[in-house]
Amino acid sequence: MTAAPPIVTLTTDFGTSDEYVGALRGAVLSACPRANVVDISHDLPPQDLVRAAYVLEAAAPVFPEGTVHVVVVDPGVGTERAAIAARAGGHLLVGPDNGVLVPLIARLGGEPVAYRIENPALMRASISSTFHGRDIFAPVGGYLAAGVALEAVGPRLPELVALAGIDAPRADGDAVRGAVVTVDHFGNLVTNIPRELLPARPSVRIGDRTLDGLVATYGAAPPGADVVALVGSRDTLEVATPNGSAAARLGLGVGAAVEVSGS
Amino acid sequence: MTAAPPIVTLTTDFGTSDEYVGALRGAVLSACPRANVVDISHDLPPQDLVRAAYVLEAAAPVFPEGTVHVVVVDPGVGTERAAIAARAGGHLLVGPDNGVLVPLIARLGGEPVAYRIENPALMRASISSTFHGRDIFAPVGGYLAAGVALEAVGPRLPELVALAGIDAPRADGDAVRGAVVTVDHFGNLVTNIPRELLPARPSVRIGDRTLDGLVATYGAAPPGADVVALVGSRDTLEVATPNGSAAARLGLGVGAAVEVSGS
Amino acid sequence: MTAAPPIVTLTTDFGTSDEYVGALRGAVLSACPRANVVDISHDLPPQDLVRAAYVLEAAAPVFPEGTVHVVVVDPGVGTERAAIAARAGGHLLVGPDNGVLVPLIARLGGEPVAYRIENPALMRASISSTFHGRDIFAPVGGYLAAGVALEAVGPRLPELVALAGIDAPRADGDAVRGAVVTVDHFGNLVTNIPRELLPARPSVRIGDRTLDGLVATYGAAPPGADVVALVGSRDTLEVATPNGSAAARLGLGVGAAVEVSGS
Repeated sequence: MTAAPPIVTLTTDFGTSDEYVGALRGAVLSACPRANVVDISHDLPPQDLVRAAYVLEAAAPVFPEGTVHVVVVDPGVGTERAAIAARAGGHLLVGPDNGVLVPLIARLGGEPVAYRIENPALMRASISSTFHGRDIFAPVGGYLAAGVALEAVGPRLPELVALAGIDAPRADGDAVRGAVVTVDHFGNLVTNIPRELLPARPSVRIGDRTLDGLVATYGAAPPGADVVALVGSRDTLEVATPNGSAAARLGLGVGAAVEVSGS
Repeated sequence: MTAAPPIVTLTTDFGTSDEYVGALRGAVLSACPRANVVDISHDLPPQDLVRAAYVLEAAAPVFPEGTVHVVVVDPGVGTERAAIAARAGGHLLVGPDNGVLVPLIARLGGEPVAYRIENPALMRASISSTFHGRDIFAPVGGYLAAGVALEAVGPRLPELVALAGIDAPRADGDAVRGAVVTVDHFGNLVTNIPRELLPARPSVRIGDRTLDGLVATYGAAPPGADVVALVGSRDTLEVATPNGSAAARLGLGVGAAVEVSGS
Repeated sequence: MTAAPPIVTLTTDFGTSDEYVGALRGAVLSACPRANVVDISHDLPPQDLVRAAYVLEAAAPVFPEGTVHVVVVDPGVGTERAAIAARAGGHLLVGPDNGVLVPLIARLGGEPVAYRIENPALMRASISSTFHGRDIFAPVGGYLAAGVALEAVGPRLPELVALAGIDAPRADGDAVRGAVVTVDHFGNLVTNIPRELLPARPSVRIGDRTLDGLVATYGAAPPGADVVALVGSRDTLEVATPNGSAAARLGLGVGAAVEVSGS
């Protein structure tokens, strides 16, 4: 049995009609020719950190431990924002210090550690001011996949920049308050409230609606119900319209407040 | 020489702007870290079983024997439809029992065998009601790639659900009757009538046209001919408009009847 | 340490909603089951040789030496145009002899050598007239990755067809003349004038504008400047509009003339 190659995932907002994603793949493979380079998505909305963070949080934990996840959604490229490499829950993460990695780190659990990338030996020889994905993030991801120690990238970074725009879900008396973090392509409103924070018989308030109880699947809505709540494939609360778009029906999107109480 | 890694192809209608395809790849690699995960397409029209079936039928046989093909075009997710794993012509197939695998199985030939997936040891620990791709199909595909025996997935399934909407081509006296199964992005009308069923000098009836004889290539149409018939890259009969769309010219699409007779 | 698998990149204008790209991947893997098949892009504008050539030129050199690059942007499929395999700068290239490989070969440097693909043993058993990607280019790429000698594909080809539509940049007295070769998805006008041909204090003439000096990054434009020049991530001269599209602002696109002189 041959040892499995190290896995490096890529998540960007580059689209696939330019040379950018191909260059990222080449940069990973130049640093680690054995790597298995795997895409999470390159079709994320440009510079939308919240959406990128939650797509990453949903997909990355499905990969085996030891996977290196490289994220390049980086509106601040060329500014003073730090480039970071981190370890959380047995996975390695590489990306800008702009909050995009924070929900994934929280989901992976354990004691995360992060380092500021400063070691030029792990970067491309010539660093452009506009394409740090190719010149810094992908090479560092490749070198980590090849076995370079995380500590080699640079000094310890004690604290990461938070993800702006979305607060973590929190208990507030008997209620749990959270927010819509993604609208998927069916128009489902995906929240950041995990299954384990839901009471036994939840009552969900969103927009001007109150939804009592959860349905088991999208198709199990009672006749006449136009909006239902359920636990979706991310193990978080979702609000859906059977055969339609809850986002359109309720006129809500990313950032909308959601409150859950026991009924 | 290192042994080649097992190959697992993915075919879905998920699009590439959500986390779904990334999660599938992670689920295959968690079951089989050595796998070479390769896409056929993720941009198929949502829930269009006929198109998915014929894209799969055209691409999958080009892969080497031993490849595992995982297909997730699954309008019935969460209902009673079976999940299946099958062997045909040296390839392994995993997907829903909704007909999407049937044309590929026929094309691969030999004696196909199918099993109903029931073994929870080959699935994700927690099964969602909405994402069987991640929770059932991809893990089973990964375990088969890792060497788990096909028989381990569950009981033998003697018969598969047929693909609705398109009949297999059939001889009818001197004629062969078939149908358009795909309109490609050039507007070519691709039928399910294979080269070996065509008579020496075929006369093709489609819509209100009769086309006598075949041309060798798209560019070899006689001057003035606006619609021609040829054998395309799938080795089946196609109807094309030189430098244009036959689908638009004839006003026809998937399901349109085609009849071929000797002339 | 396991030997790294051979890398084969794919660059096409096939899009990702048909079976074509999946079939290419299968054809590479049938010839070389150990190959790591990696995409550069499949979303290039159909039959746009100039854009394909410059996307390839930007991405391919980032891959490690020994990589095989297969390119299928081939408006002349089925005509007399040659199929070629070449070596340049330690990389191997496979594609049609229509100019699409020429800028990459120039960028890779060294003494390129090219051969005309004629050896049927390196092709699919049955060659269609419409899909040479699957039947010729991908199999040859796979066999080269598997270690078949470049000389085995066919006779030496002393000269390649030039890329029509864009001249190489050239010095003209004190000035350097070049052209816009790509408009990226931000609307930046990417030229073919490399950094090393730029004078110390360049003055750039494009359309009806003269731009004195370069800025360091997109964000470093002086207040009020609506169009600036800089060296982009390809190490060539670019013309950009801060927070906007220079292509739209200047009404220019691929092929537009650019002249640089010292000021």
